[in-house]
Amino acid sequence: MRSEPIAAPVNDRFLRALRREPTDTTPVWIMRQAGRYLPEYRATRARAGSFLTLAQTPELACEVTLQPLARFDLDAAILFSDILTVPDAMGLGLHFADGEGPKFRRPVRNAADIAALGVPDPETELRYVMDAVRLIRRELAGRVPLIGFAGSPWTLACYMVEGEGSRDFARVKAMAWNEPALLHRLLDVVARAVAIYLAAQAAAGAQALMIFDTWGGLLAPAMFETFSRRYLAQIAATLQADPIARDLPLILFAKGVNGAGQLEALADTGCAALGLDWTITLGAARARVGDRVALQGNIDPAVLQASPAVIAAEVEAALVDFGAHPGHVFNLGHGVTPDVDPERVKTLVDAVHAAGRRIRGG
Amino acid sequence: MRSEPIAAPVNDRFLRALRREPTDTTPVWIMRQAGRYLPEYRATRARAGSFLTLAQTPELACEVTLQPLARFDLDAAILFSDILTVPDAMGLGLHFADGEGPKFRRPVRNAADIAALGVPDPETELRYVMDAVRLIRRELAGRVPLIGFAGSPWTLACYMVEGEGSRDFARVKAMAWNEPALLHRLLDVVARAVAIYLAAQAAAGAQALMIFDTWGGLLAPAMFETFSRRYLAQIAATLQADPIARDLPLILFAKGVNGAGQLEALADTGCAALGLDWTITLGAARARVGDRVALQGNIDPAVLQASPAVIAAEVEAALVDFGAHPGHVFNLGHGVTPDVDPERVKTLVDAVHAAGRRIRGG
Repeated sequence: MRSEPIAAPVNDRFLRALRREPTDTTPVWIMRQAGRYLPEYRATRARAGSFLTLAQTPELACEVTLQPLARFDLDAAILFSDILTVPDAMGLGLHFADGEGPKFRRPVRNAADIAALGVPDPETELRYVMDAVRLIRRELAGRVPLIGFAGSPWTLACYMVEGEGSRDFARVKAMAWNEPALLHRLLDVVARAVAIYLAAQAAAGAQALMIFDTWGGLLAPAMFETFSRRYLAQIAATLQADPIARDLPLILFAKGVNGAGQLEALADTGCAALGLDWTITLGAARARVGDRVALQGNIDPAVLQASPAVIAAEVEAALVDFGAHPGHVFNLGHGVTPDVDPERVKTLVDAVHAAGRRIRGG
Repeated sequence: MRSEPIAAPVNDRFLRALRREPTDTTPVWIMRQAGRYLPEYRATRARAGSFLTLAQTPELACEVTLQPLARFDLDAAILFSDILTVPDAMGLGLHFADGEGPKFRRPVRNAADIAALGVPDPETELRYVMDAVRLIRRELAGRVPLIGFAGSPWTLACYMVEGEGSRDFARVKAMAWNEPALLHRLLDVVARAVAIYLAAQAAAGAQALMIFDTWGGLLAPAMFETFSRRYLAQIAATLQADPIARDLPLILFAKGVNGAGQLEALADTGCAALGLDWTITLGAARARVGDRVALQGNIDPAVLQASPAVIAAEVEAALVDFGAHPGHVFNLGHGVTPDVDPERVKTLVDAVHAAGRRIRGG
């Protein structure tokens, strides 16, 4: 399945930091770095006609993946795709109404809906993603590593059961309370599908993998453990048994999940790194997980509304808070928003490298 | 200012729990207990014509405040009002567009806007609130205590600067980073206004006070300390110096603010109790704040979508987790949502009292 061998990336700071090896400076990439804040992204999207066409056309997905790398000194690329590709391939009918979030034409609501779900074959039903990974990897030509990703089983189940985004996802929570066995069946099939999907991205050329549990923070701690973390651990274990994916660092990002014992339990899944949002400091998180995992994050994306001097100061404070230990990948605590001036992103990226060099002596 | 003496409430479980005194069972009230999930509320609101008329007409505010007490065995009433009354009285022009959240006609954006803000006199500019407090207190006739409330300075500033609700409140955060002195001037005048407003509610007959910091959880820990907690402490100190309000327990609810040191620092403001959302367990929170404050909360409001048996089990688990110590007021971790069946709320309230009696031996 793997294409011809490609040289290791010239810039391997990101992979070294994930392995908690020393680096000359702190590596940085930005969630949604390929996105609407970039005029060239908006132009490609306009050409594509729709977000889904953009995401499902490998040449266009490759084009927008590479756009931020041409502007900024980023240390990683991330596959341009959507977290809902897997349920879409399961037959739920993903679509985006104008100006609205994602919706499914056929949400899953009962035992029959869930029994009908199969695990998609990535190289057929999600071929456009695998082709995008191969194309991006080739076009990157080793400049920086490529990150593949997927949504977490819990987060995917939120959308699959509700049929769309929600303020409180009360319908999927009601299933958790009233029909837990049913929800576990759903989460299990989704977890198997996600693991196979991520392993296929690894085989196609991804060099690190990330799982986004965007809605994990909506759960009380015991529910998070039962309905989310358990399935993240299941995926991590499956990937550890995969001959290719086992060599790729896995990053788990459970937004808003910082409670007592929760970061520690996530670190115990066997992942390489935890993503953090800005409601916990890097220093506090590191004090809890120690050298078990690397940390990725975490300043407030709203800081990109601030002046360049403030951005640089916030970056510096975050890096100082983490300290000179190996194992930090800088990122925002959530995705960059569409209203941001790209020049501010440049300020941020350059500030990370400058402060990282001072702190790490590189 | 205070009206003629009214007897202490017949049911004083709520006040006793806030003072961390033993009670026969766990007291319970529900955030937004007077709200759209009740058909009688919807009828009164339809009669009022608009939410603002409902909130600003003391007789109607009194009517809806009392509605849930007629249905459920609740241990406290809470003034029916809006958190944005204070900025409205400052001249910002609160209004609600159909099916949308609150908006201000005149948001504050610069030094001149902020310099123009005065501290409203509660008995003139917020007279409708004070009249509602007096009327509700009289109509309650001592059945249960009445809670008065206000929005926190940070949460009010969020709406005052943005002019409406927002996903990330980037504009007010930009002010925090780029013009911190300006934001501090705004927060200071709002904090002074809120303290005077709460003291006036106490004088009018409120028997406990609560401050809602709905958006505190959007701030990184250092920003929360600087731009929110400091002003909560300022209000708490002002109330401690007020001859009437000093005797009322003050509850601080900073939603989503559970980080290392944050609950402890909130407890150190001199408040009587902390409100908690469902992302932290009562046991974990109590282990951190000990006997310094009572705790109010905290199960996921979505549990009201579950079956009666599940609701009772979740209530029991929360009460067992808190333990038999004095100092627990049961509540949801956030307001009850409009789609809830009122019968489920009855199940919840009765389950709290039943489990509380078992645990507390009442």
